[in-house]
Amino acid sequence: MDRRSSITVIVRSVLAAGPLRRADLEARTGLSQPTIAKLTRALIDAGYLTETTAGGGPGRIGRPAATLDVHADREFFAGVKVTPGELIGVVTDLRAVVRVTAHAPLGDARTPPDVVRAIARLVTELRGGAARPVRGLGVSVAGDVDRTTGLARYEPFLGWHDVPLAALCTAETGLPTVADNDIRALTEAENWFGAGADARSFLLVAVGSGVTSGLAVDGRVLTGAHGVAGELGHVPVDRRGPKCYCGARGCLEAIASEPALLRRVAEITGIPAITLGRAIELARLGDPRVGEAFAEAGRAIGQAVGGVINLLGPELVVFSADHLDGFALLDPHIRAAIDTHAFGAAARATVEVRPLPFAQWARGAATVAIARHLTSVTV
Amino acid sequence: MDRRSSITVIVRSVLAAGPLRRADLEARTGLSQPTIAKLTRALIDAGYLTETTAGGGPGRIGRPAATLDVHADREFFAGVKVTPGELIGVVTDLRAVVRVTAHAPLGDARTPPDVVRAIARLVTELRGGAARPVRGLGVSVAGDVDRTTGLARYEPFLGWHDVPLAALCTAETGLPTVADNDIRALTEAENWFGAGADARSFLLVAVGSGVTSGLAVDGRVLTGAHGVAGELGHVPVDRRGPKCYCGARGCLEAIASEPALLRRVAEITGIPAITLGRAIELARLGDPRVGEAFAEAGRAIGQAVGGVINLLGPELVVFSADHLDGFALLDPHIRAAIDTHAFGAAARATVEVRPLPFAQWARGAATVAIARHLTSVTV
Ligand SMILES: [Zn+2]
Ligand SMILES: [Zn+2]
Repeated sequence: MDRRSSITVIVRSVLAAGPLRRADLEARTGLSQPTIAKLTRALIDAGYLTETTAGGGPGRIGRPAATLDVHADREFFAGVKVTPGELIGVVTDLRAVVRVTAHAPLGDARTPPDVVRAIARLVTELRGGAARPVRGLGVSVAGDVDRTTGLARYEPFLGWHDVPLAALCTAETGLPTVADNDIRALTEAENWFGAGADARSFLLVAVGSGVTSGLAVDGRVLTGAHGVAGELGHVPVDRRGPKCYCGARGCLEAIASEPALLRRVAEITGIPAITLGRAIELARLGDPRVGEAFAEAGRAIGQAVGGVINLLGPELVVFSADHLDGFALLDPHIRAAIDTHAFGAAARATVEVRPLPFAQWARGAATVAIARHLTSVTV
Repeated sequence: MDRRSSITVIVRSVLAAGPLRRADLEARTGLSQPTIAKLTRALIDAGYLTETTAGGGPGRIGRPAATLDVHADREFFAGVKVTPGELIGVVTDLRAVVRVTAHAPLGDARTPPDVVRAIARLVTELRGGAARPVRGLGVSVAGDVDRTTGLARYEPFLGWHDVPLAALCTAETGLPTVADNDIRALTEAENWFGAGADARSFLLVAVGSGVTSGLAVDGRVLTGAHGVAGELGHVPVDRRGPKCYCGARGCLEAIASEPALLRRVAEITGIPAITLGRAIELARLGDPRVGEAFAEAGRAIGQAVGGVINLLGPELVVFSADHLDGFALLDPHIRAAIDTHAFGAAARATVEVRPLPFAQWARGAATVAIARHLTSVTV
């Protein structure tokens, strides 16, 4: 491994599992003891790592009990999640702990220049509130985003095609910017600091205006050979199902996304433009047809996730929903369908539900910026 | 990395890409130059690697032009693929090149003891035909197999539950045995020596008495946290589809496997127990209802594979079929459905069809035995 990769591996290991002794680091990274000694010394000198000697004695640097941790305050990173109508922004420290949050309404702004200008204004506000310099920016949007080039190839909610999002944000903010798919960025954060720190492989499913997922196997988030992966929303689940905006028929998202669900409830009840809150209320009051609409959406989600479980055999499946009350109505039907479809021992996957508010998504974007920054650290 | 892992990595790299110079090996493995020098020397002394000095000059060992290759004849491995009715066996050299093949009818033998005795007889025959000692055995069966423990947890065609297949074969043959799921073993062979040598990620789909798949990402075959992965046959594709033997409704295999297809053609034509050959003939003669039955199976396969493409974004999809004539009737419908369902840039995955006769499946089993053996090499 070259020096730069070794540095990335060391910092990443300490980030994920620190504080760590040098011997732990050797076991985790597979790097040799002299390499660890040399590079951790350089990283301490550069302010990335701190060293603490445990115990009450007059510990000396280099003694076995010394542990290494990341110097979280060395530099900060901004993350912005773009949704139609609103931007959610955070500043995190080097350990991806959120230190500042801010929102900005987008109003009717939809075009890339308008949205990028709004991002820049929000980043300026975020930097103003941050106690330390911000070194990089991560921006996440839905759809097909090539993280390597920063190109948003297709964002369905804003109607974007081939927008050089990272380059535009760099031009407007002056910060090195990484653009990524929103759920993949969130999965990256879970992989470094959340579920993935313990599970060898996991599937993260987000249910809201879309249905999408992120996948991590052996500690790596799948990115797809062509930049697309985890598109659970466009897994076909019903050959005779409704048309999806992507052009195909019977995609999960065409059945189980919030707009699809509300469309069905509106048909059933005759209440045009019914809100999710009202639909939940009707289901709770015992309207069997509205209850069945939620059940149908839940079954479709469970069916698709059951398929993923059969394909990948993840250790853990984490569900996250924009609206937990709505998700509670889907939950039993999702689990029943997973039980039906999971094949053999794959059914042993643990299924969890966890709230992941939008600030967490913005933190995901910041995590991707941290990850990119760490690949460029030279000490 | 410890010495044993480093040895495995070196031999595996030379197997996949040899002949290689030591400098290539350094770049590929990330191991240090002294480690490479020391371990390749030990592997040459133990007969695993051979060294050739290129050019006409009086080359000396250690000169830059020297290349390393695997000594394919050092030891041989047996692989057996178990199908209901027949065993297919091979002996391969250390490079997984098939050197001996043999078949054995199983007749009505279905119970684990009967099948294992037949495996042992076949292995004896194979060893008799092999010019070099056989060091290990790989046995592959359909269904849910835990490679680590060698337990066949569920084999649907033979009706096996929790059969300690590897242990039984070791007891009967005296050879260290690895048991694995058949398509996963085949994927392992493709990953080491075939498609995977070039593609970063690929999906291998086998269409025949079942429909199943193997997945490799970043050079590793997915095995699932609980030993199950790649179960494409039990990905649900039609919520109102027929019941599958696994208990769920609308599994791909319940629609597109050879028995499912023939069941539908039998219904349509009124010919009970129609053969695949006859069904193909009728479709080719232009019977529109039989043609539609093939189209329906093809669309279901394409739909499921389109879903996998959206989830994993593989670089390459390889189809393999027991009967290429039958597959030719499915092929255009599979491709059309993939085109419909593949989302965004994921649609750029290359789709190939390749014959993979049963001997290749047996070679897959031998590959898994080679892989296991290499993890235990001490020099
Ligand atoms: Zn779609
Ligand atoms: Zn099934």
